[in-house]
Amino acid sequence: MDLQQLDLFAKDIIRQAGQRIRDAFSYDLKVETKSDANDLVTNIDRETEVFFIEKIKEYDSSHKILGEEGMGEKVESLDGVVWIIDPIDGTMNFVKQHRHFMITIGIFVEGVGKLGYIYDVMREDLFCAMTGHGAWYNDTPLRKLKPVKLEEAVIGINATWVTPNKKVNHEKLIELVRTVRGTRSYGAAAMEIAFVVSGKLDAYLSMRLSPWDVAGGIIIAQEVGALASNLKGQPFNLLMQDTFMIANPSIHGQILAQYVELK
Amino acid sequence: MDLQQLDLFAKDIIRQAGQRIRDAFSYDLKVETKSDANDLVTNIDRETEVFFIEKIKEYDSSHKILGEEGMGEKVESLDGVVWIIDPIDGTMNFVKQHRHFMITIGIFVEGVGKLGYIYDVMREDLFCAMTGHGAWYNDTPLRKLKPVKLEEAVIGINATWVTPNKKVNHEKLIELVRTVRGTRSYGAAAMEIAFVVSGKLDAYLSMRLSPWDVAGGIIIAQEVGALASNLKGQPFNLLMQDTFMIANPSIHGQILAQYVELK
Repeated sequence: MDLQQLDLFAKDIIRQAGQRIRDAFSYDLKVETKSDANDLVTNIDRETEVFFIEKIKEYDSSHKILGEEGMGEKVESLDGVVWIIDPIDGTMNFVKQHRHFMITIGIFVEGVGKLGYIYDVMREDLFCAMTGHGAWYNDTPLRKLKPVKLEEAVIGINATWVTPNKKVNHEKLIELVRTVRGTRSYGAAAMEIAFVVSGKLDAYLSMRLSPWDVAGGIIIAQEVGALASNLKGQPFNLLMQDTFMIANPSIHGQILAQYVELK
Repeated sequence: MDLQQLDLFAKDIIRQAGQRIRDAFSYDLKVETKSDANDLVTNIDRETEVFFIEKIKEYDSSHKILGEEGMGEKVESLDGVVWIIDPIDGTMNFVKQHRHFMITIGIFVEGVGKLGYIYDVMREDLFCAMTGHGAWYNDTPLRKLKPVKLEEAVIGINATWVTPNKKVNHEKLIELVRTVRGTRSYGAAAMEIAFVVSGKLDAYLSMRLSPWDVAGGIIIAQEVGALASNLKGQPFNLLMQDTFMIANPSIHGQILAQYVELK
């Protein structure tokens, strides 16, 4: 397995897919009044996933693809080489904001994360990593995260989770929100994860994410020292939905121990 | 009063100030480890406000300036021509994220909003309006907002306000968060306001904002049909802190009537 070559290939098709989305988007925006925005998005989402599947199968037909849109084969294990792909993370942002949506991909070899990508399509910004070789924001190496105190942290959390819900004790999360310096919510998990690995946020947590939301980010996290887990502190389950947190290592354990109480 | 000329002048000094911030920022980032990030920000904030004051006084010494940093004279009324300026809205984003901070300015003549600006410094994106003449996003005219149902709305609200607090009945806001399609929080009031006037968000509300946070946005709002008010439904008080909401006109009244209960 030539990971360098695979990395170049992955970056190439991610940038190609980004260009396709920007083109389709720019064309379809002109006919926006005629088309249903939801259908438009679903179509671009699916077309992008099919684009990835075709390119990857051309590259190596033994690679398996697990994608949000389910256009690939059924993937029930991480044996062999598995690409976990979200062609558009942040669908609602895509529709309403025309920004803040990401392509994100994690490539796993025999269950081990090797290559991770989060690509901000409209900014043309790439966060990526190769396990053991570091992480980058475009051409700039990402540094190891510096320690941060919880009182000075800015965290990504959706308002929903500090209201009564079935997943988690919201009273504890209210304490968390009051303890930290500030909270943010961008409506795209991969964007919030990209912000954590680059120190723009100090933590991000969610009660329900899918493998394709986090696969790329988990791999980048390792290279900058960010800790990613489910909210029990275990590895995120890459074959089903799970709870999720990624955080600066100086506050990951503290948040889990003091502020997260799953129901 | 030649508003066209004043508009050109305002845009010119906003872009100059943006360039100064980007330059200072890029230089100071290199010495980041030596300097205290908070001091750095305070300095750039103040220097930017002083830059505006000097330029404006050169243009017309009778113009008054009300700024966040308080570097201008004391402004106790909106008589004459008053510039209300926030040199950097989103200070924490400036420090941690190196993006998502705005210069925002409103120019009032005898208490009436005439020219409004929100400038995303790092994107070099300008949202602006001249009262009675329309609003623009860079060179593109902003359209009147289309009606939206509350159930399909995406709103800007900080997680703090759906937790028990002294300002507002949070139980009602929890209902609001559950009713809408989604929530966002960007940590910069002017950014959320810019998103509402351009249809990227459908509403934004806060329990405590200052005149410089909203002055520019309120003027842009009028031109696209967005409604801006305090949370009692009255005009925002431009000489002191106040509650605030800006929203698509199809949901502004509904949110106020059904979901906002001030304490």
